[in-house]
Order: sequence, then C-alpha cells, then structure tokens
Amino acid sequence: MSHMTVSENATLADVGEFGLIDALTGLFTPGEQVLVGPGDDAALVAFPGNRVLVSTDLHVDTRHFRRDWASALEIGHRVAAANLSDINAMGGRATALTVGLAAPADLPVSWALDLARGIAEEAALVGACVVGGDLTAADQVMVAVTVLGTADQPVRRSGARPGDLVALAGRQGWAAGGLAVLARGFRSPRALVEAYRRPEPPYAAGPEAAALGATAMIDVSDGLLADAGHIARASGVALDIRSADLEVPEPLRAVGAALGVDPMRFVLTGGDDHALVATYPAGTALPDTWTVVGAVVEGEAVTVDGAGYDGPPGHAHFGG
Amino acid sequence: MSHMTVSENATLADVGEFGLIDALTGLFTPGEQVLVGPGDDAALVAFPGNRVLVSTDLHVDTRHFRRDWASALEIGHRVAAANLSDINAMGGRATALTVGLAAPADLPVSWALDLARGIAEEAALVGACVVGGDLTAADQVMVAVTVLGTADQPVRRSGARPGDLVALAGRQGWAAGGLAVLARGFRSPRALVEAYRRPEPPYAAGPEAAALGATAMIDVSDGLLADAGHIARASGVALDIRSADLEVPEPLRAVGAALGVDPMRFVLTGGDDHALVATYPAGTALPDTWTVVGAVVEGEAVTVDGAGYDGPPGHAHFGG
Repeated sequence: MSHMTVSENATLADVGEFGLIDALTGLFTPGEQVLVGPGDDAALVAFPGNRVLVSTDLHVDTRHFRRDWASALEIGHRVAAANLSDINAMGGRATALTVGLAAPADLPVSWALDLARGIAEEAALVGACVVGGDLTAADQVMVAVTVLGTADQPVRRSGARPGDLVALAGRQGWAAGGLAVLARGFRSPRALVEAYRRPEPPYAAGPEAAALGATAMIDVSDGLLADAGHIARASGVALDIRSADLEVPEPLRAVGAALGVDPMRFVLTGGDDHALVATYPAGTALPDTWTVVGAVVEGEAVTVDGAGYDGPPGHAHFGG
Repeated sequence: MSHMTVSENATLADVGEFGLIDALTGLFTPGEQVLVGPGDDAALVAFPGNRVLVSTDLHVDTRHFRRDWASALEIGHRVAAANLSDINAMGGRATALTVGLAAPADLPVSWALDLARGIAEEAALVGACVVGGDLTAADQVMVAVTVLGTADQPVRRSGARPGDLVALAGRQGWAAGGLAVLARGFRSPRALVEAYRRPEPPYAAGPEAAALGATAMIDVSDGLLADAGHIARASGVALDIRSADLEVPEPLRAVGAALGVDPMRFVLTGGDDHALVATYPAGTALPDTWTVVGAVVEGEAVTVDGAGYDGPPGHAHFGG
C-alpha cells in the first residue's frame, strides 16, 4: 500500500480522516503476530494461548498530559507506557494495541504522526505493535489506548496474605517530582522532567514477578499508597510500608528543598512512573529488580511505618 | 463484592471515580469466557482459538450522538452496536468489550449507569460482555469502545473479484432518515427515529456470510457507497450498485416527500444501520438474509446503475 506524504504544516482538516489514517498506518510495522493489521473492520492477532489480557485507558489533554509540557513523541511514549504497564502488572506480555485519537480539526498532522511514532516506539520495547484504531473530530484531544497481552500465570490484586513481603520494582516518585517542577514553570532537574515526559516502566519485572510466585501485583498509576490500597482492599489485608526502605533520590531531595515539600511525599503519593508493587510469600529470594519496602499484615488499608498517612494517598478524578 | 447505591440526582463529582466504577461494575455480568473481569489491572478472557479479532471506535457527544436525541440507554445500544458490527463485518462473533468513558464532572451518574446498561444489553444480544474499562474527567462526553471477537474464517475487504455478486443484509437508510428527521426537530416517522436511536445490526448475517463463502465484507457505517468504495479500493475492483434492487421503505419515502429529498439518497449514503455489504462468487445460493444489489466488475470505484453518483458517498470527518 502506498502512503500519502503529508506537509508538516497541514492540519487534520487539510488531509481529512482517510488521508491521516493512511499516513498513520504507514507508521505501524506489524509484528509476526499480526494476521490482519490496520485497514479492515477489525484486526486479527495470533495468541500463543487461549487466554487474552485486555485493558483500556483514556488520556485527555490538559488532564493526563499537556501539549506544552511534553512533545507529541513523548506523549505517545507516555500513553503507551501507561497501558503496557497494565499488562506488566498482571505479569503478562503485551502483544497488540489499538489507538483511538479524538482531536480538533486544527490539530497539526505532524502532532498526530509524532504521537503515533511515540506509541509505536514504546510498544516495540516489549515486542507489541499497533494493529488498529479510530480517528474522529472532538473539541479536546483525547487518546484511547487498548492493549492486548498474554500471561502464563496472571497475577491479580487479590492474592496478598498476611506475612507476605511488599516489594517495589522501578523508579517511584520521579515523574511526580517532574510534574511538580513543570507545574511551577521550571524545566529542571532534568532527570525528573524526563521521567515525567517519558516514563520507564520496569517491563521485565512483571513477568519476572509472576515467575517468582508473586501473590498480588499492581502498577503505580494513582500513587504508591493509593495503589497499595487497591491490593489491600482486593486481598482483604493491610499493607504497611516502611519509609526507611524507600529510596528518595537526590533530584527529588533538591526539588523538595526548593519547593518546601517533604520529598517523601512524591515517593508515597506520586504516580506515572509505572513502578510495580507486588507481594511475595515471606522468604522469597528476590533479585535486585525488587526492593522490599514493607509487609502484609492483618487488617485493612495502608499504613506507613505502622501509622496512617496524613494526606491524600494519590490522585482522584472528579474530586471524589 | 458489594456495590454502592447511587442517588438518581448525583453527579460524577458527587460519587467520584471509584464510587462510579463500583456502581458500573455491578451492571456487567461476566459470561463464562471471563476469567478475570473488571477491577484488576487487566481483564482475562478465554478464547476458543488462538486468534483474536479486535476493533476500537470512538463516540463523541454532539458528533456521533446527541444527548437530546436519544436516551443514555439508547446511546449505549448505539455505541455497542457500532463496535459489535465491526466483528460481524469480519464474519466473527464478539465475546468481550472494554468501555472508556470520558465525561464532565457534572454528568449525572444516572446517565452513565444507563449508558452502561445499554452497552451491556446490546452486547448480550451476541453473547458478549463488558470486561473492563476506564473512567476519566473531560470537557466533552466521549465513549471509547473496544471489542474482541473470534472468527473461524475471517472475511476481509480485499477479496472481491470481478464477476462476484454484491449483496446487502439488514436495513439500510433507516437510521439516516431518522437522523434527518431529528435534525429538523421532528420525532416521526417513529420507525426511522427508533432505527437511529437503536440500530438493529444483522448480527447473524456476518458469520453466515463467512460460512457461505463471502469473498469480501464490510459494515455500512460511513454510507453504502462510501463503504462499498472501501471494498473496491481494498480489492482493486469496481462495484456497481443497481438502485432498482435497493428497497426504499415507505417511511423513507414519506420523509423524502416531506423534506423534498430523493429518499434513495438515504439508502445510498446513509450509515448507522450497520447493514452488511458482502461479495460472493457468482451463483452462490443466498438465503433470504441477503439481497443481491449489484455486481463486482473490472475497474475501480463505485457506480450506481453504471454511472458515477452525483453527491457525497457518505460522511467525512474533519471536512476532508
């Protein structure tokens, strides 16, 4: 199939729905699992097993991303990472994504193409690819991503038992620190801003946790305490986090000092790094990927050093 | 799991993200194919084969639906039907859906719940169910639906060959007539308005076409001529539609007379009924489900009675 060439200054209105779909489709290289790719009524994807993991996330302009805080390429990486992380959090491997883009007619075509490139690049990190999608006009830019995946042994939120270890994989608090910096009009520390713009989920750690016998797992998207709370609620247990075992990296300390905020707050309540929180039977020998940061105990809810946390545990939509 | 009781007058802001998710989850009865349903990082769905069909559609308030033209329950049926029809158009059977809802905080909770009920009811018509989703705040109501399905023998758009029959299954033009009526502030003919509010895709006809050896298939969502054009382009052929073989039902004739429009225009360019257009080898014995309405010929593009059609073949986003 030949794909149209699009001027960098063109808008969606200039090229129209089908022109942009042609241009986008050319960016999505199908993997061998793709039997029918973009351009038909549905895509057809081969799966190694008879069970499919599926998860959907919506990403709304000015709420989940800001076009003046990150490039379209980075936003593509961000939205794909958020969805790929959901499969990671089940101990699975992502294989295919669909992407819906709703946007005003004056959106530059180049923005849409860069977004698609970022999504495709992030998906390629785990061997997944974009197999289909939809494109429509709307007042606000919104990206809807659905990811399909496979897991030999899915790890749910509900299996944590008193006595289990609580362990963390991946960076935690960096993206929240970057967001705090950007929200105040700064662009440094660079490491934190980059962590916000282009998170690096620990993609190897999810399947690793499943193989190690994790009893429960979740990825941190609402905040460490909020998401630990989802495990606690689903499992009918309490989780106690030991703050001394949480790393507070130097750039977060610098931001905390500059903004007059306890940097531990970013670590405890930040999302968007897509770290994994998992519980393991006591005595599980964990590789360096994982840091033990607490324990599962009888009860409900989440405590920090044995006490309730004074502050919101994470992000709430609708102010609810 | 217990589910919260929600006041009819409450808004999303009153109950918050997690409160509404709890209430919505209670509406989605998992079928036996659902191994992990809503409430974890991803759902897990069993499939009879090793191949999965997947398709995503976005539905934007004031563009794909209007809240003053149809109830939330009807809009739920509409958006689900559009997605289920994509699996139908591959000759497949839908098994699972994910639903993303983006909405302003002042949206009534009852509207969101009725939308979910409509989606669940429509999915149940084909034995599919909602297995997961996402909920977020946005300026505009938007519904993102992804449907998964299975097909023994997927029918693509690209297999039409000169000499094939072109056949149609399902109502065509009814929803477009209903839309024209609603757009002018009327509420009748009732049959057309109902067809717009709650389309009735010919769900049995898709798998039937696959079993009958259809060479190409698509569902009519952009308009009969526009979607026939997608088959023509993908197959490298031309399709000629014979207008005398297209039924123009009485209510469409009435609307045409009232509005001073040729009612055949609704049939040729209307979408939203989710009729199926398929091509079959000449001589295929077709059941009553299917009406032969034309032929595949050498060439490209779509003609009506051997001539080009004077007018837009269907709906274009972004004015492109």
